[in-house]
Amino acid sequence: MEEKEISKAVISRLPRYYRYLGELTNAGVERISSNDLSRKMRVTASQIRQDLNNFGGFGQQGYGYNVKYLRTEIGKILGLNQSHSMIIIGMGNLGQALANYASFEKNGFLVKGLFDVNPRLDGREVRGIPIRMLDELEAFLKENPIEIAALTIPKTEVLRVSEILVKCGIKAIWNFAHTDLNLPEDVIVESVHLSDSLMRLSYNITSYRKEHGES
Amino acid sequence: MEEKEISKAVISRLPRYYRYLGELTNAGVERISSNDLSRKMRVTASQIRQDLNNFGGFGQQGYGYNVKYLRTEIGKILGLNQSHSMIIIGMGNLGQALANYASFEKNGFLVKGLFDVNPRLDGREVRGIPIRMLDELEAFLKENPIEIAALTIPKTEVLRVSEILVKCGIKAIWNFAHTDLNLPEDVIVESVHLSDSLMRLSYNITSYRKEHGES
Repeated sequence: MEEKEISKAVISRLPRYYRYLGELTNAGVERISSNDLSRKMRVTASQIRQDLNNFGGFGQQGYGYNVKYLRTEIGKILGLNQSHSMIIIGMGNLGQALANYASFEKNGFLVKGLFDVNPRLDGREVRGIPIRMLDELEAFLKENPIEIAALTIPKTEVLRVSEILVKCGIKAIWNFAHTDLNLPEDVIVESVHLSDSLMRLSYNITSYRKEHGES
Repeated sequence: MEEKEISKAVISRLPRYYRYLGELTNAGVERISSNDLSRKMRVTASQIRQDLNNFGGFGQQGYGYNVKYLRTEIGKILGLNQSHSMIIIGMGNLGQALANYASFEKNGFLVKGLFDVNPRLDGREVRGIPIRMLDELEAFLKENPIEIAALTIPKTEVLRVSEILVKCGIKAIWNFAHTDLNLPEDVIVESVHLSDSLMRLSYNITSYRKEHGES
C-alpha cells in the first residue's frame, strides 16, 4: 500500500467503521455491500468507497466487503493489532470509569498503572491494579514501558503532570482535562473535552429551535 | 445578523473559542488581536477571522476583539445564555463523573435528575440530587420539563431507554453509550465515543512511528 497523507476527517471516521464492522461480525454477517453498509451507518455509499480507497479499497466490484477481513485491516490501520500500555492519572470518577472500562483491553489498550494525589486512595485497587501516589510516577515510568498516559485531572494540575510525562518520554496523551496541552510537537495529544461536546449539543438545540420558530 | 448554514467544522470549533476567551477573561485580558489569539490557540489568524465572520465578525479592524463581548456573543450562539435542564441515566462511574462536574452548571446545564437500575443506588444522592430508579423515569419526565438526557449506560440498554425518552418527548440526547442511536430526525444526538477517541490516538501513534521509521 502506498503511503500518502490521509485527511483528519477520514481518520476520525475509521473507528466508526471499525465499530460497525465489529457489530456485523458479532451478528454473523460475513459480507456486506457498500450500499447496505451505507444504510446501516447513515453515510453515503460513495463516502464509504472513497474513505476505504484511501487505504487501497478492500472491496471487490460486485462482491461487497468481507466484513471480517475489512475489520482486521482497519484495525491494523488504527494500530489495534499491537498492544498499547497505558496509565491513568487522576482516579476521580472519570479515571475510575476509564480504569473499569474492560472493552479497551479487547482492543489492546492495557492499563498498567493508576495514579492519584489523594492519600486515601493509596493502595486501593481497580480491577487488580493498585492506585499509586503521583510522586511515584517518575520511578514507575523508568521501570515500566508506557505508551499512553490518560489525564483525568483538574486543569490546574495539567502543567505539573504533563512536565513529568514529557520528561519521562511519554509520547502519547489522552487528555480529559478541560484545557489544551501545549507540549513538544513529538507528543501526540488526543483530547476529549466533555464541555465542548455539551456545548455543541446546546448549539444544535438552539439552532433547531430557531429554524422551527420556537424560542 | 443573517441566518445562514454554518458548517459543522465551524460549530465544532466554537466551544474552543469560548473556552479560550473564558481563560483570557479570568486572566484579566480585555482585548486581543486575532494574531495573538491565533498564537494562543495554535490556529491561523485567518481561520479565526473566517470562523467569526460567519456570525458577523465581532472585531474592529486594527482594534482586535473585545474578549468579554466576544465570549458573551459566542455563548449566545452556543445557547449558553439560556439554562438547559438535564437528566443523567446510568449512575456508574461515568454518570457520577458527569453529575459531579460542577462546571456544567456554570454554563447553564442544570442536572435535575439521576437514574439507574441498581436498587442499591436508590435514594443515594449526588450533590443533593437523589438517584431514582429507571422505572420512575416516565413519571418524572411527565412532571419535570427536561431538555437533555445524558446516557451513560451499556449499549445493551440503549434501545429500551431511548424509546422511553423519545416517547416522553425528549429532544436532545448526550450519548456516551458505545453505539450510535437511530432515533427520529427531530431528536438531536451528540455522541461521545471514548473508544473512538482512543483509536484515533492509537492511529496517530502508529502513523507517527511509521513516518519516523520505528516499528
